[in-house]
Amino acid sequence: MADIGLPSKGRIEALTDGIFAVAMTLLVLDLKLPQTLGELDSAALRASLLALLPKLESYIISFLVLCVFWLGHHRLTHVVRGVDYVFLWRNLLFILFITFVPFTTSLMGEHRDLDDAPVVYGVNLALILAAQCLMWRRALLYLTDISEREAAERWRIVRNRYLLAFCIVGTAIALAALDWRFAAYVYLLFFFIGTMRPRPAVAS
Amino acid sequence: MADIGLPSKGRIEALTDGIFAVAMTLLVLDLKLPQTLGELDSAALRASLLALLPKLESYIISFLVLCVFWLGHHRLTHVVRGVDYVFLWRNLLFILFITFVPFTTSLMGEHRDLDDAPVVYGVNLALILAAQCLMWRRALLYLTDISEREAAERWRIVRNRYLLAFCIVGTAIALAALDWRFAAYVYLLFFFIGTMRPRPAVAS
Amino acid sequence: MADIGLPSKGRIEALTDGIFAVAMTLLVLDLKLPQTLGELDSAALRASLLALLPKLESYIISFLVLCVFWLGHHRLTHVVRGVDYVFLWRNLLFILFITFVPFTTSLMGEHRDLDDAPVVYGVNLALILAAQCLMWRRALLYLTDISEREAAERWRIVRNRYLLAFCIVGTAIALAALDWRFAAYVYLLFFFIGTMRPRPAVAS
Amino acid sequence: MADIGLPSKGRIEALTDGIFAVAMTLLVLDLKLPQTLGELDSAALRASLLALLPKLESYIISFLVLCVFWLGHHRLTHVVRGVDYVFLWRNLLFILFITFVPFTTSLMGEHRDLDDAPVVYGVNLALILAAQCLMWRRALLYLTDISEREAAERWRIVRNRYLLAFCIVGTAIALAALDWRFAAYVYLLFFFIGTMRPRPAVAS
Repeated sequence: MADIGLPSKGRIEALTDGIFAVAMTLLVLDLKLPQTLGELDSAALRASLLALLPKLESYIISFLVLCVFWLGHHRLTHVVRGVDYVFLWRNLLFILFITFVPFTTSLMGEHRDLDDAPVVYGVNLALILAAQCLMWRRALLYLTDISEREAAERWRIVRNRYLLAFCIVGTAIALAALDWRFAAYVYLLFFFIGTMRPRPAVAS
Repeated sequence: MADIGLPSKGRIEALTDGIFAVAMTLLVLDLKLPQTLGELDSAALRASLLALLPKLESYIISFLVLCVFWLGHHRLTHVVRGVDYVFLWRNLLFILFITFVPFTTSLMGEHRDLDDAPVVYGVNLALILAAQCLMWRRALLYLTDISEREAAERWRIVRNRYLLAFCIVGTAIALAALDWRFAAYVYLLFFFIGTMRPRPAVAS
Repeated sequence: MADIGLPSKGRIEALTDGIFAVAMTLLVLDLKLPQTLGELDSAALRASLLALLPKLESYIISFLVLCVFWLGHHRLTHVVRGVDYVFLWRNLLFILFITFVPFTTSLMGEHRDLDDAPVVYGVNLALILAAQCLMWRRALLYLTDISEREAAERWRIVRNRYLLAFCIVGTAIALAALDWRFAAYVYLLFFFIGTMRPRPAVAS
Repeated sequence: MADIGLPSKGRIEALTDGIFAVAMTLLVLDLKLPQTLGELDSAALRASLLALLPKLESYIISFLVLCVFWLGHHRLTHVVRGVDYVFLWRNLLFILFITFVPFTTSLMGEHRDLDDAPVVYGVNLALILAAQCLMWRRALLYLTDISEREAAERWRIVRNRYLLAFCIVGTAIALAALDWRFAAYVYLLFFFIGTMRPRPAVAS
């Protein structure tokens, strides 16, 4: 009865998976043909569909970014033996920022040629990164069985990766001031870094 | 076969986690730029974004309040050995009131300067509190292995905490008549009480 | 490897719980203040809130009805040892009809004074009942360990309960032609029958 | 600690089930009476309901198609011992294309008499098929315990089935140019092939 009140790993995983499932599906709610009062003909439908392409691009980038964060969360909970309240609250913050993604994506999809949209999107990503980075810190330094020295070493590696990710997001925000089109692709770069991350983390 | 028909803890946990995941994500559907017929320029976009800030504030407060209730629900199901129909129906009532939160939050976000919005929000919180309090009563007095005396003692402590929470909500509703701005922050206070609750409940 | 390809109980439970969680939360999306172009004052807000009360009533009735079906589904999967494709397809039909509930509820909330709304709602409930009844038949006659005679006996009891439920829904549809207000309360009666069902099913 | 960082089967199943639950329920959001400013009378309500029938048909076809893909995914994860990153990314692609289904279904429901709607729907199905086929390849050739020869044999059978499915979708897209009404029913045929698939896959 020593750990009564300590939430198990299982439920925070279930809640997080649920949040990701809903957020990933809600992204697509934004793909919608404009309401028309009369009947559409084939040419008008094609034009409407083509007009959705920038939204589709934002949607796919956001989906891939969410995939990277989900994989990261999985690796995290795979590493820990159990969770404590500090970890839980950081996880709850993490999903709070995840729930913003459908909104900031929609903003990018509709108005990414305006200065503020890529900035708001970048700030959203930076907040998710910060929450996940804090979760890694708690996990590695307090919630695993590995030796103190190895934990410190792994935390150092993880932290450097997150610093790199912060730099990418910062660059994207800065570039957005020059040309919004760059920004979207820098976020895509962020995604490729994400996909490459797992292997080294395993090796260490 | 004695307990055939008795729903397991696992599925009511899964349903509750699902409800929280959807409710938490739906909160954000309310964050939406006003539909405009023409093109926005940068200044108009910034103005629209700034106009969303009160909604964002309501959203974050509600998210934190839902987190506190989710943590409370977790502690609850962690304590019980199994569930019976009385507990299940109280849990279903609990999630009914949770599903109202996106609506009452949206009301606060748009009209919290009007008398009724903080009152409706407060009543929503009070109903959730009442359902969760009844779940604790059932759990501690009927569904644990601990001795009758210890159960009564723990129930007394839990009940006092809920009485305190009811007072906070009551105060927020009363204050809303004076100045709506107070109300929002009293709900935030409610959240801080919530975060401090776990430790003593463990100790007892 | 004999049962390769046979889906486990766990995933159909997870999918069903997810469907219920989303359907229960989507019901509330219908509770929405009418969009107003200008600012609301307190009196107008109160009037808008009062105008939502019939929707709220429909919402709560539907939520309770969904609770009864969820509890029924739980008892069902608690009884079976495993699932086969016949059972799975009946379960998928069951959740198809569950996903209609937010739509038919919204219809009741807005237009229940018109003939067709309670009829459509009643037909929806009858389809859910039919799917769940077929699931019980498959479960009791093919997917449990109990003796053939006991299974037949229990199936007879369950079938009689579903016949009673069909009669209630039929009566509600018929009454709707006379006075829609009766219909809503007959559906509520259906809910109370539902809550009383578990005990005898256990006893048998 | 050899497989640290390797996501377990459980969480990708949970995420996939969540995506299916949300996508299946969102399909129905499209069933909506047109907003009317005044009061409806019974005849107008009936006319509105009848006007929803083509949407309902699209909805049910899509629901059945999603059921077939869900059953396929279940069989897939039932076969594998564990998952690796290649499998996971193919699974994430799979759910990306699943999240498009509510949008492409809505397109079919509203504009299936126009050339592009059945084409877009067909392309969506083909993408889902391709992702699932790649998952089967990875699963059978790398992630099971069965012998290399048997794995190659089973992969050959599975691949042939997917080639058949691709032909059906291709035919539906081609037919759509002649008469859209054919297309919808070819997709239905796709569904019946799907329901017949399991048994042989087991036998092999």
